[in-house]
Amino acid sequence: MVMLKDDERLDYLLAENLRIIQSPSVFSFSLDAALLARFAYVPIQKGNLIDLCSGNGVIPLFLSARTKGRITGVEIQERLYDMAVRSVRYNSLESRITMIHGDIKDMPKQLGYGKFDVVTCNPPYFPTPSNAEINENEHLAIARHEILCTLEDAVSVSSQLLRQGGKAAFVHRPGRLLDIITLMRQYRLEPKRIQLVHPKPGSEANTLLIEATKDGKPDLKILAPLFVYNERNEYTREVSELLYGE
Amino acid sequence: MVMLKDDERLDYLLAENLRIIQSPSVFSFSLDAALLARFAYVPIQKGNLIDLCSGNGVIPLFLSARTKGRITGVEIQERLYDMAVRSVRYNSLESRITMIHGDIKDMPKQLGYGKFDVVTCNPPYFPTPSNAEINENEHLAIARHEILCTLEDAVSVSSQLLRQGGKAAFVHRPGRLLDIITLMRQYRLEPKRIQLVHPKPGSEANTLLIEATKDGKPDLKILAPLFVYNERNEYTREVSELLYGE
Repeated sequence: MVMLKDDERLDYLLAENLRIIQSPSVFSFSLDAALLARFAYVPIQKGNLIDLCSGNGVIPLFLSARTKGRITGVEIQERLYDMAVRSVRYNSLESRITMIHGDIKDMPKQLGYGKFDVVTCNPPYFPTPSNAEINENEHLAIARHEILCTLEDAVSVSSQLLRQGGKAAFVHRPGRLLDIITLMRQYRLEPKRIQLVHPKPGSEANTLLIEATKDGKPDLKILAPLFVYNERNEYTREVSELLYGE
Repeated sequence: MVMLKDDERLDYLLAENLRIIQSPSVFSFSLDAALLARFAYVPIQKGNLIDLCSGNGVIPLFLSARTKGRITGVEIQERLYDMAVRSVRYNSLESRITMIHGDIKDMPKQLGYGKFDVVTCNPPYFPTPSNAEINENEHLAIARHEILCTLEDAVSVSSQLLRQGGKAAFVHRPGRLLDIITLMRQYRLEPKRIQLVHPKPGSEANTLLIEATKDGKPDLKILAPLFVYNERNEYTREVSELLYGE
């Protein structure tokens, strides 16, 4: 039994293995979040993972299928946090996923410095929303724009939370590559793996996946690109597996 | 008639349109140089272009097929400079390509600051050669290692040579992406276009093409990736066109 509010739906993740509460007017997870959950390094048997700017908890849910470690999700918007908590409960994952309602900037003090093996973050992409956008839908405006969380906040907090050698995985727009790399190096996160996601073969990249190691040695690899659709406008095998399971 | 020395060969470029003097023991152009000559923005009807670390002149030769502008090539090794001069003469391109035997660091003073529309550069890739490598083949060691020209030299000189709004196109290894971006921004070159080259689909990138605009506004695009070989280990159409012409 799950209590759905307003226009919420209970959607499937990974075929029928997981369910997630979504709402078209409040928040639905994006393909980018799913791509990040697939891209990020995760320890399989144990570990301490944290997802920042967690929204409706999609990344913790996806990650729970890849690791037996403990996963914390942090979300500042109470409405979204509440959706995440109910999804975790619906999937009986309370023992492995803990959602926190709070500001990511308070987390190092609250949870401890250097305690995490992995940080994931799908931060807001756009620097400044118009007043119209904020008025029209505050939930979406906060999730999409750097109102309560800038890219620098997210990178700085990730670095504080990670142990030496821990890994931070971010998804962002390719246009912010230079900023993200500069900030990561500024906060002792050395970029090690990049993957570009292109809507289809022959198109510019529209999504950037990047993983850095705290205090790592410079040694960047750029992985094979990922295409979302093939030439016939069908999901490629990789994306289909990602969304619907293997 | 062309005078070939030692083990030099007269190879074809772009089907039968151009010929280039190469030598397996001294210098043969790489696919990377050809990729850069294809990737770089060039004005079609006129313009002032310069290629730094020119080797046997392969990039000026390729560029001459894409622009009617004037092209200067700079090479510090006399033996390679001499091959380039003879190739230019063999192709009757003396009126459009001028080779200079000299150190790129002297070029802004010698040729003028801010006089060029386009700079191309396929710099040495490797930081420090062993003494064994230098002793074994000085020509190849200088062409491949940052002995006489560091990445910072190449970026700094490019910026000095370019007019405002002019473009610098570099080819390098993906592992140096962070360094090249950091240096470019330090020398007022704003990265605008990146293309990754992968040996084949599913493989990590092994070549990075990057173009920056002097004093440009931040707006980075990551182009569709380029694959050298297809699944059947044949050159892809793009690479085949690049090497053999259309």
